Amino acid sequence: MIPTATLLFYCDDKPGILASITDYINTHNGNIIHLDQHVDSEEKLFYIRIEWEIDQFDIPRDKIENQLKELFFQNKYAQVFDLHFSDTKPRMAIFVSKMSHCLYDILARYEAGEWPVEIPLIISNHEDMGHVAKKFNIPYYQIPITKDTKAEQEAKEQALLEQYNIDFIVLARYMQVLSEDFVDKYPNKIINIHHSFLPAFMGAKPYHAAHKRGVKIIGATSHYVTSDLDAGPIIEQDVTRITHRNSINELVAKGRDLEKIVLARALERHIKHKILVYNNRTVVFG
Amino acid sequence: MIPTATLLFYCDDKPGILASITDYINTHNGNIIHLDQHVDSEEKLFYIRIEWEIDQFDIPRDKIENQLKELFFQNKYAQVFDLHFSDTKPRMAIFVSKMSHCLYDILARYEAGEWPVEIPLIISNHEDMGHVAKKFNIPYYQIPITKDTKAEQEAKEQALLEQYNIDFIVLARYMQVLSEDFVDKYPNKIINIHHSFLPAFMGAKPYHAAHKRGVKIIGATSHYVTSDLDAGPIIEQDVTRITHRNSINELVAKGRDLEKIVLARALERHIKHKILVYNNRTVVFG
Amino acid sequence: MIPTATLLFYCDDKPGILASITDYINTHNGNIIHLDQHVDSEEKLFYIRIEWEIDQFDIPRDKIENQLKELFFQNKYAQVFDLHFSDTKPRMAIFVSKMSHCLYDILARYEAGEWPVEIPLIISNHEDMGHVAKKFNIPYYQIPITKDTKAEQEAKEQALLEQYNIDFIVLARYMQVLSEDFVDKYPNKIINIHHSFLPAFMGAKPYHAAHKRGVKIIGATSHYVTSDLDAGPIIEQDVTRITHRNSINELVAKGRDLEKIVLARALERHIKHKILVYNNRTVVFG
Amino acid sequence: MIPTATLLFYCDDKPGILASITDYINTHNGNIIHLDQHVDSEEKLFYIRIEWEIDQFDIPRDKIENQLKELFFQNKYAQVFDLHFSDTKPRMAIFVSKMSHCLYDILARYEAGEWPVEIPLIISNHEDMGHVAKKFNIPYYQIPITKDTKAEQEAKEQALLEQYNIDFIVLARYMQVLSEDFVDKYPNKIINIHHSFLPAFMGAKPYHAAHKRGVKIIGATSHYVTSDLDAGPIIEQDVTRITHRNSINELVAKGRDLEKIVLARALERHIKHKILVYNNRTVVFG
Repeated sequence: MIPTATLLFYCDDKPGILASITDYINTHNGNIIHLDQHVDSEEKLFYIRIEWEIDQFDIPRDKIENQLKELFFQNKYAQVFDLHFSDTKPRMAIFVSKMSHCLYDILARYEAGEWPVEIPLIISNHEDMGHVAKKFNIPYYQIPITKDTKAEQEAKEQALLEQYNIDFIVLARYMQVLSEDFVDKYPNKIINIHHSFLPAFMGAKPYHAAHKRGVKIIGATSHYVTSDLDAGPIIEQDVTRITHRNSINELVAKGRDLEKIVLARALERHIKHKILVYNNRTVVFG
Repeated sequence: MIPTATLLFYCDDKPGILASITDYINTHNGNIIHLDQHVDSEEKLFYIRIEWEIDQFDIPRDKIENQLKELFFQNKYAQVFDLHFSDTKPRMAIFVSKMSHCLYDILARYEAGEWPVEIPLIISNHEDMGHVAKKFNIPYYQIPITKDTKAEQEAKEQALLEQYNIDFIVLARYMQVLSEDFVDKYPNKIINIHHSFLPAFMGAKPYHAAHKRGVKIIGATSHYVTSDLDAGPIIEQDVTRITHRNSINELVAKGRDLEKIVLARALERHIKHKILVYNNRTVVFG
Repeated sequence: MIPTATLLFYCDDKPGILASITDYINTHNGNIIHLDQHVDSEEKLFYIRIEWEIDQFDIPRDKIENQLKELFFQNKYAQVFDLHFSDTKPRMAIFVSKMSHCLYDILARYEAGEWPVEIPLIISNHEDMGHVAKKFNIPYYQIPITKDTKAEQEAKEQALLEQYNIDFIVLARYMQVLSEDFVDKYPNKIINIHHSFLPAFMGAKPYHAAHKRGVKIIGATSHYVTSDLDAGPIIEQDVTRITHRNSINELVAKGRDLEKIVLARALERHIKHKILVYNNRTVVFG
Repeated sequence: MIPTATLLFYCDDKPGILASITDYINTHNGNIIHLDQHVDSEEKLFYIRIEWEIDQFDIPRDKIENQLKELFFQNKYAQVFDLHFSDTKPRMAIFVSKMSHCLYDILARYEAGEWPVEIPLIISNHEDMGHVAKKFNIPYYQIPITKDTKAEQEAKEQALLEQYNIDFIVLARYMQVLSEDFVDKYPNKIINIHHSFLPAFMGAKPYHAAHKRGVKIIGATSHYVTSDLDAGPIIEQDVTRITHRNSINELVAKGRDLEKIVLARALERHIKHKILVYNNRTVVFG
């Protein structure tokens, strides 16, 4: 595998950006293997994800970011700027409560090498999933949370995240609302799975609400966590049909399959640096 | 085609209902060709749709309803009771405003004989769709509505509905909210298509709202109209995927295809007497 | 949980079957909690699944089958006849080769108690999945197969299936074709997952074939194994969209998610006795 | 609306193509409003669709093609090359037999102005759809075909296509197989809708075949017609769920909805110049 660099950014749409970035990479012997760009003509914004092989690239790795910033920042183009190298795996922490379906799904993919990611630790407010962590030899920290202990316990969690050099967090059916302080420290770095088709049925017990409303389709939504509950940028959604024959328990069971697949798709896109967030929405590149 | 009777009802779930109804039909030489029943074990309710051939049935047609009521009503079983004969086609009025996609879809099916229904008239608050009605030789009444004229104009509409012996109404993207009085006169007899995945994005401009929220899937919902806007019993829903590349206009275009198909499925089920409404939800039989 | 009996059968459609069976259960104090029946009017066949509580049933459990047979067999009605009690869990053997995605999915559901099933053993032609079996404390038998050893190795497998009282087998991406002899011993008792939308792309390397043909949707199919390769009765299918951007490896990855979900849905229906097989097709009750 | 040029081509993947094409447009004051490119790393091919505003473009319209060819052809890059201007509407002929559902769907969209297309004529081997053509004031030519008259009748059809300056043809459930000669004259210019999920159930009566095989999902496929029946490049597919309850007639009815929607999506992409054909597959740009 030839190592690659992946650059994502967005900026005001002006003529010549695309020519300029492709020319820069080309001139320095980078071989572009993936480019996906999009112009939002309503917002007048240009979005791009570009990936190129860097084995022949004549700019040293540690100089690329600064050079790109000089070229594209500085009142010129980009407002957000994200550069990754394919041989550096992001490090993901899993937060989980008592349900195992998303956890097993993630760990089975991890063990099979499906994703270029490291999972150095699992944090839970309960002991229930400890045996799963043990099966996969991943450190498991039980950090119970009550209203009174929330601040100090979240501090412990953050200390662990630093200790393990965590890049981003997945809430794999973690049944605690993170404090605003916590969330603000990890902008676009905390991925949640909500068990409804957002914005329908925000908050607690969405399957009960869906059953009561009599919907014919239920869904699941993976999104970045913001301080506004269940209102962060949506990464991925999917749905499944139900009928009047389905009890709430059956909705919950059907929902589990949705949840784990939708969460996995969102994680893969984040891990592979395919997502740009703008204005509480996501651009998910192909 | 042998004529059939179709009976729908629901009642408190007690032992013996099913045996009792099937025995009744059997004893009187009715040949059951379709039976779908469901017990909601949370609500303790029994729902049934049963269809039988009546050419050999030894109870005269006009006696069946009373006899069934004696057997199943009277503090005994059924709370709601619906009996139809296959050789009596329901009569549907179409209400439409300026958009043609649902209207053409309905009329093309009608002309092709897809549904056992009569469409004696089309009512609109605008003149725009008059040429479509003319193409299909269906009387078209333009009844403009303003805040001030609403009561009298709705009275005209209701007079037409009576004059034409209308059984039920489809709002085929009719951009007027019917008054509570109007709605109350047609309980579970007015079918609307809402251009979102309800309960998400109720009210006006749902595609704009969906675009703003950044959802990855949009939907359409067909439901019975109640006095509570966009909150009536859902009959059918469907969804389609969108991406960040899709402008609002593209959502609207994709939505049109959803709307007409979802509405058509709901209409077919209503026309074929496959729907029971209970507690603001629908049981849709197979 | 009140124990229930579940009866499935099909027979020539004659008047009175439904009244007869419901009356029988009713008379003997069985409380019917689920009934789904279907008449195939082209084939003139009647299919039924009926489940009733047996705590008050006045026929002893071991007499029910014979009595039902007397009532419904004997040149009278049923041709196939299937009776189960809810407190007897079916026993499932897993056959697996080198891929873990279906295996983990099944075992995670098993551990979580999602299905009323026992999994007493796992059989594989390779050693690779031994560590997964170990994680879940399930005996793992490695039985390598070559052309020359097939007969004797399958004999070993069948001995194990007898030893462990296995009721049915799941081929969870087991990359060996079972011999006709083997298959014939387990009619409608071996469930396979094929990684295409059957009947498209039967046989080996379906994702390669799908990529070559340029389809826009790929699928997975779970079916009962017959001696005719990939041609047995289909239980469940599902699909997912692909684009020209997807490489074969990406099809394989997307396919894994389809495979495990489609297989799980098929297994659940089999475990819950919701499937009747007739004429190489399945009736899957709601 | 500012007029645009749209260029599609593919070529061997070499460094610098993208920089070169974007630089060319940029230098001549073209404003790129859409670019979608793709590298097939297995085939080592580069595909692109690029659209730019030409109101300020300093190359005259009738020179663009030659100039682009000089730059990108000539043993240099492109093997296929397609240039369109947004103010030139393609002209589509509809071929139809006796079924109206696709025809009405296309004409309703046409009348509503959904697509930038002209429909100058409808050709049919039967008289049945003449009244529909009349409703929309489109010339309708009935050209019956028998084995013996096929050659001469196809000659008449081709004469009409020339007379009306037709760019491409849609077979809207046209129940005749075009001769190889005919097909060869319109490479990637004849769009068919096949009523199955290809490559499953090629040829006649696919719904019957699907019913017999007992599939749980049926589909429809729109593709370019080649001399190899139902084997041309696939543009779009979609599916819908069925159950054992559905008769063949119900499959046919559900299929109609699939057919018209799938065909419409394919037509839109063709009309908007979003499709490149390579190696019997399509690249469908976003």
